[in-house]
Amino acid sequence: MEIIATGSELLKGAVENTTTPFLVSQVMSWGYEIIRLNTVRDNLEEIKGAICDALTRAELIIVTGGLGPTPDDVTRDAIAESIQMPLEFRSEIWEEIQSFFKKRGRETPPSNINQAYLPYGALAVPNALGTAAGIIVTHNSKIIVALPGPPEELRQMFLNEVKPFLLRNFPPQITYLTRCFKVCGIGETVVLQRLKDVLAEARNTSAKFSYLPRGGEVHIVLQVAADEPQVFSELETKIRLALGEDLYGIDEETLPGKVGELLRSINFTLGVAESCTGGLILNYLTNIPGSSDYLRGGIVAYHNEIKERQLGVKPETLAEFSEVSSNTAMEMAAGVRRALGADIGLATTGFAGPAGGLPDAPVGTVYVGLSTPRETLFSKLFYPGLGRITIKSMAAKAALDLLRRYLIRLEG
Amino acid sequence: MEIIATGSELLKGAVENTTTPFLVSQVMSWGYEIIRLNTVRDNLEEIKGAICDALTRAELIIVTGGLGPTPDDVTRDAIAESIQMPLEFRSEIWEEIQSFFKKRGRETPPSNINQAYLPYGALAVPNALGTAAGIIVTHNSKIIVALPGPPEELRQMFLNEVKPFLLRNFPPQITYLTRCFKVCGIGETVVLQRLKDVLAEARNTSAKFSYLPRGGEVHIVLQVAADEPQVFSELETKIRLALGEDLYGIDEETLPGKVGELLRSINFTLGVAESCTGGLILNYLTNIPGSSDYLRGGIVAYHNEIKERQLGVKPETLAEFSEVSSNTAMEMAAGVRRALGADIGLATTGFAGPAGGLPDAPVGTVYVGLSTPRETLFSKLFYPGLGRITIKSMAAKAALDLLRRYLIRLEG
Repeated sequence: MEIIATGSELLKGAVENTTTPFLVSQVMSWGYEIIRLNTVRDNLEEIKGAICDALTRAELIIVTGGLGPTPDDVTRDAIAESIQMPLEFRSEIWEEIQSFFKKRGRETPPSNINQAYLPYGALAVPNALGTAAGIIVTHNSKIIVALPGPPEELRQMFLNEVKPFLLRNFPPQITYLTRCFKVCGIGETVVLQRLKDVLAEARNTSAKFSYLPRGGEVHIVLQVAADEPQVFSELETKIRLALGEDLYGIDEETLPGKVGELLRSINFTLGVAESCTGGLILNYLTNIPGSSDYLRGGIVAYHNEIKERQLGVKPETLAEFSEVSSNTAMEMAAGVRRALGADIGLATTGFAGPAGGLPDAPVGTVYVGLSTPRETLFSKLFYPGLGRITIKSMAAKAALDLLRRYLIRLEG
Repeated sequence: MEIIATGSELLKGAVENTTTPFLVSQVMSWGYEIIRLNTVRDNLEEIKGAICDALTRAELIIVTGGLGPTPDDVTRDAIAESIQMPLEFRSEIWEEIQSFFKKRGRETPPSNINQAYLPYGALAVPNALGTAAGIIVTHNSKIIVALPGPPEELRQMFLNEVKPFLLRNFPPQITYLTRCFKVCGIGETVVLQRLKDVLAEARNTSAKFSYLPRGGEVHIVLQVAADEPQVFSELETKIRLALGEDLYGIDEETLPGKVGELLRSINFTLGVAESCTGGLILNYLTNIPGSSDYLRGGIVAYHNEIKERQLGVKPETLAEFSEVSSNTAMEMAAGVRRALGADIGLATTGFAGPAGGLPDAPVGTVYVGLSTPRETLFSKLFYPGLGRITIKSMAAKAALDLLRRYLIRLEG
């Protein structure tokens, strides 16, 4: 499969292409193999060229964007020319466009009639949210799918209409069994060392390993040929053993989701106090549906006065050890636990830069505090030479992972 | 210019390609025009094919990834074959690789010798962070640049080495003057209406407009041919007038950055109370360097008990109007202002879903409260049919924009 994103705006850096990653993760999870991604300008010849090239390599081509009503929108023409078919006026589509505007009490702009012309013989993909119909055409037993650019329209059409069509008419040839193993808090080198024996054992099988560093996490992707399921399951067992408690989850599992599961299973509530991570831990946690079951809330204590007033950090602690110290982190954790009536308190304090820092705690230094009914602990992290946003996200992930490791031991 | 990202992992959805967007925004800002982006597998023929295709269209080609020491790393070979040059052993690079390992007290793995072979006549781009040298070759007065995949190595080499080389030897032909106008809280349709007269006036110029919806914001990009600078500046003035206070910023400016500027200029401090946005507003604000100057901190009040205890929301208010109501939002805003000793309190409360909601406040309902020394206000938002994470980010942006509009009036 190849994906061709059209749209000059995607080549200007002003707009992020979120659609291609969405399509990639979807079709991969259904078992299709992607061989190339392209982003091209809104230009008839260029889109046509990209489609014709893709037809020489792929069985299935998805084109996004360029289905609007303006003269810039040339995907319909590009497909028609690529498969050497004329455009055909489709009265049923034109009626739908008119009723779309009518329902909204607006006149149909004349230019929208362009959207009623599809390549001859095309299947129209209905669009519940807009006027741009999608297109499915077959050509020499290859399939070209075109969908409009607006992400909400595309997602809905892709999942509701295109997905069942593809799976029925063009089922993927599952060639690989795949599993993603996720760890946090250890680097790629440690992962490799941990997996040394597994890798040696896998040498004479079809197994392939990839290592993907992902902002404080490492994702290890195992791929085994689909006709070796027992190799796959044996390797999976061995990888799980080798990674032990460093493995926080697999495939779609996330670190905040895992922390939530653990809290739920032991019926503990959590309160979070954030200084340098500035709300990011709370944001990660609240991205998980149902997190209100175990998350009481949190306090972002940017100012020292807030650390004192809201979290009960002692002025002497701040004066003697500074705000970026193990003592402050532990007092913050204990303080937020008490203030919010939570079973567990998690806290961060550090210097995210670019300015600031102290001789003993330069920019990149972060302390994590953890307070539980039994004890209060800390962990020191150091991320030298990284930017503010990277430091925030590495520290937030590390804090969640520290909590996860603690909860596993509590549970175990 | 074309960019070719190599790496099978990029086509598996498991790893996000952050490098291409980085390169796009960099080279665009220097004035280069990008005509196509490609992502291809780690396969000699495919990379070679992509380079040869790109050579038919572009003057300048950047290839990322595939410069490691393993047999999968074939970018060096692909370039050599594309320009029909042999690979050449470069003893000075081999020495650098050996000294890289020596400094770290490790033996040089024999396979790293592959990294010392570059296409004949290539310029080597030094890599301070790793063993993969970059490559610059010229071919029929076109330029091919290859850089290693790891983002930190690539960034550093691209900015320190490749940038000066390109700007000196291959200066961009500036063909457009570009400005991005950013608004929040009004949709594309309203923007178009607001700009109707400007658009009509621009009809006979080279001006091009694009509208990019960006999670609750709309970015309006104006492009004018470089030889019409007076058209550009007249249009800019007219767009600014037409958008008025809806315009929060231009180009690289961000909404939380703008809020920070305004707070700083009137010497006000801010406290934030978040329920449904769960820390995201605080995260946005603390992404701005120096935000500790005006941000006192915040309270994420997920539980009603926290709303009462930490923010002083009255139990009667929660009982009578529910936690998702204008009254609760205003009491939260006033409460966080008081609790954190800030000049201004900003609060959100709502249902981000997927579960929950009340008959009067279904999922997608969000109230924003704003409390200042003079008054306490609220705003009601509704995002039906959207997912949890989208609702959080739309509401967080809307809350920041409400605050921005208030601050502008205070200042004005």
